[in-house]
Amino acid sequence: MIQVYTGNGKGKTTAAIGQAVRAKGRGLKVAVVYFHKDADKDKSGEIKMLKKIGIDVFSFAKKHPHFHKNASVGVIKKECRDAMDFIENVLFKKKYGLVVLDEACIALRDCFIEEEMFIGMLKSRPKNTEIILTGRGATKKIIELADLVSEIKEVKHYFRKGIKARKGIEY
Amino acid sequence: MIQVYTGNGKGKTTAAIGQAVRAKGRGLKVAVVYFHKDADKDKSGEIKMLKKIGIDVFSFAKKHPHFHKNASVGVIKKECRDAMDFIENVLFKKKYGLVVLDEACIALRDCFIEEEMFIGMLKSRPKNTEIILTGRGATKKIIELADLVSEIKEVKHYFRKGIKARKGIEY
Repeated sequence: MIQVYTGNGKGKTTAAIGQAVRAKGRGLKVAVVYFHKDADKDKSGEIKMLKKIGIDVFSFAKKHPHFHKNASVGVIKKECRDAMDFIENVLFKKKYGLVVLDEACIALRDCFIEEEMFIGMLKSRPKNTEIILTGRGATKKIIELADLVSEIKEVKHYFRKGIKARKGIEY
Repeated sequence: MIQVYTGNGKGKTTAAIGQAVRAKGRGLKVAVVYFHKDADKDKSGEIKMLKKIGIDVFSFAKKHPHFHKNASVGVIKKECRDAMDFIENVLFKKKYGLVVLDEACIALRDCFIEEEMFIGMLKSRPKNTEIILTGRGATKKIIELADLVSEIKEVKHYFRKGIKARKGIEY
């Protein structure tokens, strides 16, 4: 199955992380692949815990131009192609029960990942590998392809009151 | 801050669990209080992992009439009052960084928890304790009180195709 968590509200990545933890608790082999986040630097509170409980963590295209003004689009696209290659030819050979592709919808929306290549990669997954995609702006084709889509809508958010991202809560 | 994850889509509890894991990864003291789920029986894949990483787990009003036709509403209400008392007088004395009240919105919606008592309990929380509430049907007063509300909408769900809840994915 392919699950998608999209929309403008808080809870997309955390839903995927919670799902990863639940799956791991049932003995599934789990991988989380981050786009636009540097998992090696352990900047996010969850990454440390994921590694601790034996979930495999990878990251590609760590920089996004929204946060890194000087990031090269060409380099980001190259790293996304490397990610597709890695997921299809390395990760999918290892029979994971669950593979989370965090912010993949953003990478697709912003055309860093070529959609047809992405869909081809998804279709190459082993039969029993559950896939979770997160990120705003899931494309029409991804929504069509998915078996489950949850749209997380912002009803209200403290960011609107000027509250900054907080350690342990937002990252 | 008070965060609420509500709506009819998949991802409410998992978002709270992901948030709990992230907070724990930053060294926050975290508790998860389940309503309408028996945490002692470890039926859910995530509970084992939460305990493993040092998150404190409690459960109250374990049965819900929707799943347990013979459950006594009187008993459920009593257990919910016990939960309010426990959260206010035991949990909140222990300076948690994050307390998740899973399915509290359901218990409120179904009037097992008296709303004014619940709001009084929430208001008694220590200054630095983040609260997360999950469950469908968050009431108007809870939405007003909350600092963040994400509505998780079902766009599509494989349950509609008759697929049953799967171990490691739904529980």
